[in-house]
Amino acid sequence: MPTPPFPDDVRALLEKPNPAVITTLRADGQPVSVATWYRLDGDRIHVNMDATRARLKHLRNDPRVALTVLDEASWYTHVSVLGRVVELRDDPDLSGIDALSRHYRDRPYPDRERPRMDAWIEVDRYHGWGRAKT
Amino acid sequence: MPTPPFPDDVRALLEKPNPAVITTLRADGQPVSVATWYRLDGDRIHVNMDATRARLKHLRNDPRVALTVLDEASWYTHVSVLGRVVELRDDPDLSGIDALSRHYRDRPYPDRERPRMDAWIEVDRYHGWGRAKT
Repeated sequence: MPTPPFPDDVRALLEKPNPAVITTLRADGQPVSVATWYRLDGDRIHVNMDATRARLKHLRNDPRVALTVLDEASWYTHVSVLGRVVELRDDPDLSGIDALSRHYRDRPYPDRERPRMDAWIEVDRYHGWGRAKT
Repeated sequence: MPTPPFPDDVRALLEKPNPAVITTLRADGQPVSVATWYRLDGDRIHVNMDATRARLKHLRNDPRVALTVLDEASWYTHVSVLGRVVELRDDPDLSGIDALSRHYRDRPYPDRERPRMDAWIEVDRYHGWGRAKT
């Protein structure tokens, strides 16, 4: 599997507001996956979660994640990354979730009450399939 | 997270040929995810892979997997399952990959040369979101 920086076609796919699935690890090592918004931020990947999510406890215990991004036009084109959460930060003004909500929905995030956390993933390896084949 | 059997709305979602992402574990515990075809087979989930895939080595080493299924109509509806591969079998006549190919593409699998393996996942827990909310 190649290492970053991403070639242009992989970066182009990752820059779109595509469906994505993130996997974290439970304390016993069981993988747990869930659909997520994500956003390319430089060479890192930015995600955001409700501050009460089990996912957050998983990440504090083991920062390793997998993320698969499906091309919204055809999911046979997809990119998977392996990496680690290298930064985990409160999102008190909701600017993190707003950046994601604007990227996917063109508007700020509707829920202004529940606390959120930002996480940034550093990518160790990636693999592309379909039109993003590496 | 609830345990099987699945309620009707979750089963209805899982019965469709939806985009899905499966996560296996590398020997060092790093999660690795990839898009996959899947098919509900009773209460188990059937997947099939090229016999040379790293995924197969992962599964032989640690059978634990996560699978997230996205509703093809709107990925905000999704179901995630945690489970274990309880059966791993050669697919010498390609009947396993053909069942998946017919489910997704209405035709047998085009590549009749490369060896394939079937795997059946027993579901320990699941979680639904959106219209399949649990």
